[in-house]
Amino acid sequence: MAEKLWGGRFDKPQKEELFDFLSAENAKLDEKLVLYDIDGSIAHVCMLAKQKMLPKQEAGEILSALLKLKSQAQSGAFKLDYKLEDVHTNVEDAVTKITPNGKKMHTARSRNDQISLDTRLYMRDAINSVSAVLLQLQQSLATLAKSDCVFPAYTHTQVAQPVSLSFWAHAHYHEIERDLGRLSDLYARVNQNPLGSGAVAGTTWPIDRGYTSKLLGFSSPTANPMDSVSSRGELEVEFLSALYLAMSHASRISEDIILLASKRLLMLPDEFSTGSSMMPQKKNPDPLELIRGKTSRMLGLYVHAAGLLKGVPSGYNLDSQESKYALMHGVDTALASFSILSKLLPYLKFNTEKISLELEEGYACATELADLLAKKGVPFRKAHEITGGLVRGCMAKKKFLSSLSAKEVSLLAGFEIPAKELAEAVSVDKVARYASQYKIPPESQFSVSLEKRKKALADAHSLLEKEAKSIVR
Amino acid sequence: MAEKLWGGRFDKPQKEELFDFLSAENAKLDEKLVLYDIDGSIAHVCMLAKQKMLPKQEAGEILSALLKLKSQAQSGAFKLDYKLEDVHTNVEDAVTKITPNGKKMHTARSRNDQISLDTRLYMRDAINSVSAVLLQLQQSLATLAKSDCVFPAYTHTQVAQPVSLSFWAHAHYHEIERDLGRLSDLYARVNQNPLGSGAVAGTTWPIDRGYTSKLLGFSSPTANPMDSVSSRGELEVEFLSALYLAMSHASRISEDIILLASKRLLMLPDEFSTGSSMMPQKKNPDPLELIRGKTSRMLGLYVHAAGLLKGVPSGYNLDSQESKYALMHGVDTALASFSILSKLLPYLKFNTEKISLELEEGYACATELADLLAKKGVPFRKAHEITGGLVRGCMAKKKFLSSLSAKEVSLLAGFEIPAKELAEAVSVDKVARYASQYKIPPESQFSVSLEKRKKALADAHSLLEKEAKSIVR
Amino acid sequence: MAEKLWGGRFDKPQKEELFDFLSAENAKLDEKLVLYDIDGSIAHVCMLAKQKMLPKQEAGEILSALLKLKSQAQSGAFKLDYKLEDVHTNVEDAVTKITPNGKKMHTARSRNDQISLDTRLYMRDAINSVSAVLLQLQQSLATLAKSDCVFPAYTHTQVAQPVSLSFWAHAHYHEIERDLGRLSDLYARVNQNPLGSGAVAGTTWPIDRGYTSKLLGFSSPTANPMDSVSSRGELEVEFLSALYLAMSHASRISEDIILLASKRLLMLPDEFSTGSSMMPQKKNPDPLELIRGKTSRMLGLYVHAAGLLKGVPSGYNLDSQESKYALMHGVDTALASFSILSKLLPYLKFNTEKISLELEEGYACATELADLLAKKGVPFRKAHEITGGLVRGCMAKKKFLSSLSAKEVSLLAGFEIPAKELAEAVSVDKVARYASQYKIPPESQFSVSLEKRKKALADAHSLLEKEAKSIVR
Amino acid sequence: MAEKLWGGRFDKPQKEELFDFLSAENAKLDEKLVLYDIDGSIAHVCMLAKQKMLPKQEAGEILSALLKLKSQAQSGAFKLDYKLEDVHTNVEDAVTKITPNGKKMHTARSRNDQISLDTRLYMRDAINSVSAVLLQLQQSLATLAKSDCVFPAYTHTQVAQPVSLSFWAHAHYHEIERDLGRLSDLYARVNQNPLGSGAVAGTTWPIDRGYTSKLLGFSSPTANPMDSVSSRGELEVEFLSALYLAMSHASRISEDIILLASKRLLMLPDEFSTGSSMMPQKKNPDPLELIRGKTSRMLGLYVHAAGLLKGVPSGYNLDSQESKYALMHGVDTALASFSILSKLLPYLKFNTEKISLELEEGYACATELADLLAKKGVPFRKAHEITGGLVRGCMAKKKFLSSLSAKEVSLLAGFEIPAKELAEAVSVDKVARYASQYKIPPESQFSVSLEKRKKALADAHSLLEKEAKSIVR
Repeated sequence: MAEKLWGGRFDKPQKEELFDFLSAENAKLDEKLVLYDIDGSIAHVCMLAKQKMLPKQEAGEILSALLKLKSQAQSGAFKLDYKLEDVHTNVEDAVTKITPNGKKMHTARSRNDQISLDTRLYMRDAINSVSAVLLQLQQSLATLAKSDCVFPAYTHTQVAQPVSLSFWAHAHYHEIERDLGRLSDLYARVNQNPLGSGAVAGTTWPIDRGYTSKLLGFSSPTANPMDSVSSRGELEVEFLSALYLAMSHASRISEDIILLASKRLLMLPDEFSTGSSMMPQKKNPDPLELIRGKTSRMLGLYVHAAGLLKGVPSGYNLDSQESKYALMHGVDTALASFSILSKLLPYLKFNTEKISLELEEGYACATELADLLAKKGVPFRKAHEITGGLVRGCMAKKKFLSSLSAKEVSLLAGFEIPAKELAEAVSVDKVARYASQYKIPPESQFSVSLEKRKKALADAHSLLEKEAKSIVR
Repeated sequence: MAEKLWGGRFDKPQKEELFDFLSAENAKLDEKLVLYDIDGSIAHVCMLAKQKMLPKQEAGEILSALLKLKSQAQSGAFKLDYKLEDVHTNVEDAVTKITPNGKKMHTARSRNDQISLDTRLYMRDAINSVSAVLLQLQQSLATLAKSDCVFPAYTHTQVAQPVSLSFWAHAHYHEIERDLGRLSDLYARVNQNPLGSGAVAGTTWPIDRGYTSKLLGFSSPTANPMDSVSSRGELEVEFLSALYLAMSHASRISEDIILLASKRLLMLPDEFSTGSSMMPQKKNPDPLELIRGKTSRMLGLYVHAAGLLKGVPSGYNLDSQESKYALMHGVDTALASFSILSKLLPYLKFNTEKISLELEEGYACATELADLLAKKGVPFRKAHEITGGLVRGCMAKKKFLSSLSAKEVSLLAGFEIPAKELAEAVSVDKVARYASQYKIPPESQFSVSLEKRKKALADAHSLLEKEAKSIVR
Repeated sequence: MAEKLWGGRFDKPQKEELFDFLSAENAKLDEKLVLYDIDGSIAHVCMLAKQKMLPKQEAGEILSALLKLKSQAQSGAFKLDYKLEDVHTNVEDAVTKITPNGKKMHTARSRNDQISLDTRLYMRDAINSVSAVLLQLQQSLATLAKSDCVFPAYTHTQVAQPVSLSFWAHAHYHEIERDLGRLSDLYARVNQNPLGSGAVAGTTWPIDRGYTSKLLGFSSPTANPMDSVSSRGELEVEFLSALYLAMSHASRISEDIILLASKRLLMLPDEFSTGSSMMPQKKNPDPLELIRGKTSRMLGLYVHAAGLLKGVPSGYNLDSQESKYALMHGVDTALASFSILSKLLPYLKFNTEKISLELEEGYACATELADLLAKKGVPFRKAHEITGGLVRGCMAKKKFLSSLSAKEVSLLAGFEIPAKELAEAVSVDKVARYASQYKIPPESQFSVSLEKRKKALADAHSLLEKEAKSIVR
Repeated sequence: MAEKLWGGRFDKPQKEELFDFLSAENAKLDEKLVLYDIDGSIAHVCMLAKQKMLPKQEAGEILSALLKLKSQAQSGAFKLDYKLEDVHTNVEDAVTKITPNGKKMHTARSRNDQISLDTRLYMRDAINSVSAVLLQLQQSLATLAKSDCVFPAYTHTQVAQPVSLSFWAHAHYHEIERDLGRLSDLYARVNQNPLGSGAVAGTTWPIDRGYTSKLLGFSSPTANPMDSVSSRGELEVEFLSALYLAMSHASRISEDIILLASKRLLMLPDEFSTGSSMMPQKKNPDPLELIRGKTSRMLGLYVHAAGLLKGVPSGYNLDSQESKYALMHGVDTALASFSILSKLLPYLKFNTEKISLELEEGYACATELADLLAKKGVPFRKAHEITGGLVRGCMAKKKFLSSLSAKEVSLLAGFEIPAKELAEAVSVDKVARYASQYKIPPESQFSVSLEKRKKALADAHSLLEKEAKSIVR
């Protein structure tokens, strides 16, 4: 039991199955935290030295060991033993094997503030990675929209009005802008330093939380220790909510394509489709359906994480360990989904002839026709009614609006409608042109802010290594 | 069927049960939107006049009718008939009964952009109301903390360390700060004007969306019409996620009080407790349990709203009507819960004698004792082990840490521990004093930003009425 | 405070806002429980009399009052005052106003077992009502299927194989059979009598739970008092899960119709569709979309109820009051949704010409063609490949499978394919005929079991009234 | 591309990242299905031979290959290549490598009915495994209850009445009985054979589904092919709902222990507890908290699976692949949680002295005292009030009910209360004895039904192997 961090007050050893249950899965997830945990320990030990809570010599030995482990971890050679519970114990144990002064590195620190720290370091990078893939997805929409064409807008899954492919892409671009905005807002809340919160009550040691914040690139320390450990899981839930909404957008793009493919208005790309083992003619939009399915997974992960917050008192509780699972699976799911979608989109090919027919069959120019009447002075409500009647008549005769003569429309309207104006109002292609004015801008505002965030992290990281090395030497 | 807005292309009338299903509940919810719908129509008609899409005379008649309905609605005299489907039809119908020009007010507009508009107007006020109650809750924590006393910090629902009531209140204050931050971020996304998006594709009428934005106090028009109607429900989900997190904080405060009351460390106030019909001795923390329960309701409302976004294509779909239910119930639930909690908190009375005993029985000063050893040079890991052993010994002898003599501790430590320093380290009250430095500030930063938002809305509202009246006259 | 059931140990009165929060909404829901609460009290008082815990004379007075209130309640004249907390207090208060012996009716009983009882009585009827509407929905599918016709089966929303309308209806019929099975299984768990469980620990009074079970039509008393009150909410969750699955089936039926309508393969009925305020040509499947949306609501209600069970200890907790909201809204939502869908279905009209074309364009007979080759001895995997090639060739030439000559197919197969057999294999209508063998049976097995359950309840009810009247007289 | 089952109609190869997305995770889950997939194929090929759809000689070769792969798989030597998409393709590919007749084994079958089959075979075993662990948990409660003692019943987390440990264990035993009942009901729905449903529309081959049902131990074939493939995910949701409820019971047991440990009324076992890295005195109920947390995970998995069913049309859709993840993670989570809890329970030790004090301090005998008065003729409502007053008086004087004299109680009651009767009513231990009559029975009824199910599966399995070998030879 010597290897645990807390043997002193126990009479009997723990059962093996206890750690199978508590740590086997958890240690696998912790593998994504190793580098963050080491960086956090480096900053902590630098601070202990600076505050003279540890002699420089001893701090140097510990830091040297940590830097060594870090380069091991970077090359994938640092493995976690789940019998040692978690990443924190594994790292402390490995350091102590190199230098007995490792026993001093946990001064003024708890695993409770450590895990909060590691998670925030992970989340910062995860927010940046997800943002980068969302920016790619926006660019993929822009690429697709370059070969602009007529496109059907639906409401209630029924033909509504003629628009353009670029208009549709522009709509989805702006959904993603909001997703990026949410991630950016979240980043500001994540980017605060919990280190120094201890187990729940802070510490009476003379620590310097401003200093570790600087070394780790945080904007400031968190305000209250109990809040810092109690709130584990909260920012994870906010993250998962943002990811769910982004997934719902990827799912909606997918749904649109599935629908259009079902109507044969676009061709699914062989490169991103699969077939059936039984039905020889099939070409199926599998990745798009799976994105839709994974949207449901993301909602499940949200509920998983959110439910953890209910029914537990303040202070650290182990339930919150589960939030790591939800968070990491959520991030991986999002990255994979946005990535495959951004790769698939540029392969889509549209059948403009069939799209025009779809719009004709759906009487998509009826609104423009009603507007034409209204522009001539018919109250809109009346114009709507007249046009509704015209549509009904056309349907009965299996005709399209484009076949209406100026004469018959004028008769119903009660005044002369110029033939040219009528022709323009009922031409699918003419009306669609209006929508082409909506263009995706060359760069999202969040592209700039992502670069800034990444630069700040890189700068802090250089400072951290410099400080550590200055103590080692 | 004449009263519907869309009879023209239908051969047969609708069944009555159709509107029972579609509109009966919905129209009740729409009652909260009447004033917003009228304001939106006023802005729209002002714009139609300004753009000369409607003669000033006719616009004046419509505006006069709208202002009349508005004052009716303010006095509660405007009732919705759900056979007229929704608030939009009810308002247009009422206007048209006053002036036949009402038939022209729907020019260049759809109920799809109208409902998006109404919902955003509602959400702005709702965000502000919820923020105001959260600020109250923070003040209530501050009031409670004024009579500061020793307080038990737990981790894993086991005694951890001695803290102070003010420390605990400060922790919860900061949770709520983040809640206010999320609402503030959301407000910026909500505060964009969807009016002019039409059914899905905008309109070819020469509308001025900047002008309606100004009249309604929006920061700008939304960017894309299809996005504007497709995204109904998205900001609602973000709102509900923010409310869920805030509820989880109210629930955690409640949980803490329930736990402390169960241990008889505080007295539940008669004023906010109830009894049992069978057990005469009972005093139960009913409102606190119900807050915990309503946290689960909020999660349910989140899932309700979030699930709507999956499996539907772009463009307006009626599924999204359901998001109104989730949103409005979520807002009401949050307001009621935060309000009762903020009223209850100041009535709590703590039993400091029992709290001190609880901390002693829980060996809450063990960390401070280990830190004392570590400050004297024992590696922390070793100091932890020694202290663990001391605790184990005390438990066997049914003693507390405060009964340890300097002699016996010095023996174990291997060096002299000054009796005074030991006494301070193992005194619950002394250690607790450290935590009293955490104080709730007099005012939240979000108090200021809330005032700004409310002022901007009031200013816009004055402008809107001025413009309308200038056309009427 | 006199009117509460528990004033004795309180010094100060409760704040009015406490009951606003605890009871205002709750008392409205309790209105659906009034008759159940009265019946439960009648059974309880009959038992008190039988066990001589109450003199027959006094019991008779109470029963007389209860019967009077019951007939008031049946006529809608019994109103709840939420300041009296709940239905139980309202009923006891009303009885006591008629006879002071009302003060004795709560002997050996708690509101904790009362609410569990009332909820089970409600659930039994609710299960039966929902079952009845589901049986209607099955019959509606049967009615629709009577005018059988060719129908497109999809996988991955892509044309798969030709089937028949009756085949599709039969598939959905069997989904609903499972829904009915789940409700029937649940009924057995619900149909146990919690009365006599007291607050949490039963009672030392010599009660007869078998007798009240008989009077109320339960199969037996529940086994453990603590379990009986702690498990409030559990059967509600099981109910909501069953309702969610049933809603997902209604939603899938709706989705199929929305998709077919979008492809113009069926005509939406005017009677159950609505239009657009802006686009004159629109006819929208509003109720079907709303069913899809309400499926999400049901998932939300499930999560609401399910989340209540986590993070609370054994014994009654007020959180569980929230399960009533979820349950009752779930039941009402389900009833409304299944009802409108069963009314709408028979109005659907299919365009068989377009369906045949859809199947041709989707090469829906490819599987039958591959099977033809395989039946002639080609390994299926090879037959699949050959047919895939044929489809590819047809697509390139914009031909259908039905245009293939026996000669060209024989050439590829490497042996003679009889022209007649080929023609049958590639005829959409011929292949579809196979699917018409699937027929909805005249009656579901659950139709019988529903009748049995209803009869048992009616019998018990007669017995209850008889017993009560025998004591009154 | 030769290795896929569907290359014929495709012009271009698929991108590698497509299968990374579709299959990498999925193939790992499929490893749990290998043996089921092989058994299903064995049954299918036996049927093809019996129906003369395949010459006996060729069937024998395929079956020989399958039996060989089965023994490989049993020893863990059959590995899945995810580039081959799924378990079905991997198995067919491996067979075809042994004999070219493998190309014939997919006759009259689709991966759509195969995956439904494999999942049901998996679910049958999973239901049985989970049931077995739940029966263990019941036995663990019985073991614990053998050393019966006084135990506190709470309502609203406030002391309610004195009960016994056996009473508490009996309550939880009965919760689990319902869990077992739900699993048993589900088993009947799962135990139907989907094989023969094809892709969505069945097949025109002369298959014998009754025969494969017998070989695989199913009660009967499913009724409708489209339903069989469309309903993928439905029984998974029902399973997850049953698991969620069972987890909520494990969580409630955990919550009770956490609460009692927090009050020091029981001792957490060293063997199943952990410590703190910072606070030397801590012993934490980590596994119990994690069970509570995993209850939230189960709710998340439910939502994940349930959400998949919404917004997709009939017929197979790839979204449903996600249900496999939710199902398998749910089963594993449940098994691990119930198992650790059943191991931990017998280690609990109670502090009966402190429990008695807890009950005294909570005036737990107040109900019994009120009942004593009521038994003497005081109306219960009045007896409740008197006792409430007595409690209030005791609290003011810091006395317990057990210190009340017969004289003072008699005075308040208005008549003589015998001292002995009073003493019994206010004695925590005497009252607790009443609850000891509740005893866990030696065997659950579901223990028997589990054995029956397992025997039926074993019998079918023997038959399957016998049939296969008779064809091979």
